[in-house]
Amino acid sequence: MSGWVAVAGLGPGGEGLVTPEVGTALAEATDVVGYIPYVARVAPREGLVLHPSDNRVEIDRAAQALEMAAAGQRVVVVSSGDPGVFAMASALFEALEAGPASWRDLDIRVLPGITAMLAAAARAGAPLGHDFCAINLSDNLKPWAVIERRLRLAAEADFAMAFYNPRSKARPEGFARALAVLRETCGDARPILFARAVTTPEEYLRIVSLGEARPEMADMRTMVILGSSRTRVIERARGPILYTPRSIPDEVP
Amino acid sequence: MSGWVAVAGLGPGGEGLVTPEVGTALAEATDVVGYIPYVARVAPREGLVLHPSDNRVEIDRAAQALEMAAAGQRVVVVSSGDPGVFAMASALFEALEAGPASWRDLDIRVLPGITAMLAAAARAGAPLGHDFCAINLSDNLKPWAVIERRLRLAAEADFAMAFYNPRSKARPEGFARALAVLRETCGDARPILFARAVTTPEEYLRIVSLGEARPEMADMRTMVILGSSRTRVIERARGPILYTPRSIPDEVP
Repeated sequence: MSGWVAVAGLGPGGEGLVTPEVGTALAEATDVVGYIPYVARVAPREGLVLHPSDNRVEIDRAAQALEMAAAGQRVVVVSSGDPGVFAMASALFEALEAGPASWRDLDIRVLPGITAMLAAAARAGAPLGHDFCAINLSDNLKPWAVIERRLRLAAEADFAMAFYNPRSKARPEGFARALAVLRETCGDARPILFARAVTTPEEYLRIVSLGEARPEMADMRTMVILGSSRTRVIERARGPILYTPRSIPDEVP
Repeated sequence: MSGWVAVAGLGPGGEGLVTPEVGTALAEATDVVGYIPYVARVAPREGLVLHPSDNRVEIDRAAQALEMAAAGQRVVVVSSGDPGVFAMASALFEALEAGPASWRDLDIRVLPGITAMLAAAARAGAPLGHDFCAINLSDNLKPWAVIERRLRLAAEADFAMAFYNPRSKARPEGFARALAVLRETCGDARPILFARAVTTPEEYLRIVSLGEARPEMADMRTMVILGSSRTRVIERARGPILYTPRSIPDEVP
């Protein structure tokens, strides 16, 4: 049997959100590669070798997976959420492009997963029910000027905005600057969702106004979603619902 | 047992992409409500009543689901893809907000699914691996001027762009106008993906340059993804891979 690589999304955490397709790939694999906490989500079994690695070694990990597949192994590269959204799929293709030409003959598949913004949106209601954008707030891989420019243009376009990696220990000041830019462009009244560790036992959701939002409300396990100008909150005894209606009336510019 | 509503995403078509959580909700349901082709994906069984309805009656369908839940039934509202992305979740909350106050005491859950853009991106590589936006190109629910404005701002922000509902029989000219705006703002060389009926037996993928793109390449079953300025194509004998690298170098504005 010849080797392959599947880059698989494990979803946000809950086992009920792992697709059967990913389960099948894991059942057929000889090797699992990934960041330590994601590999820890894979059940060990005989014949399956787990290769956990640290954060920020994505290209090494990708090259390792491609090398093993070239040697005939069946390798699953695990990501949380969806592997195509700020995760391992792009890293794998970067390694593929930079690597030996023979790697291009390999069987490589990407298996989608429930990405954090969709899980968080579902828990809160439907804030991404109309046009939206997804921005990675980490300035680890891009200059801050690009992030700020995108925030301003996204506000002008009146997108709802989903923010990945809002706040890291290494750069806590970035998210405070992002909130300041957003308040300046969207005003204080706009609702914003902080959704931490969604679908895990540590899940915690909070909806506040942009004026009330504080950098400490987010950490690296938090997904942040800012509404568009049309996003609404329905108050209920069971807790608020955040949603964006499907339509924009003709008179709205 | 008291009633509930679950708005569930069936994913893009393949059964391997339906989450276990959605399967559980369908197994517990008394009633399934939805657009005819989506309800047709639910296996009939004793004790389950299927309520298929036509397109463009989303609010009526949502109100029907809420009414049945208020009467003690366990109702799954089915969407394709993810219910929170241009689908039934927002319609349900519109109906909830406009309906009787007692509906707000109902148990309402949104169960996320694999949305079309993530399935299409996975099949093609990882075009959404960096910042991106999702825009519904149908001008059924919003003025064309809003769409054009968002396209121009998204191009300026250098987002990859995922387009839902690119072309309908009723308004075939809209997508031609969108392509013209995109060529004007992004140039002819930018790669664009047409991904039709992804994960079904009719799946068909095509990657062309924006200059080669033609309106007829899309229909209502096609997801269209335009790369950012950084998106790359890796040519292979097995077919091209479209992906966006994770990083932006400091010198790029």
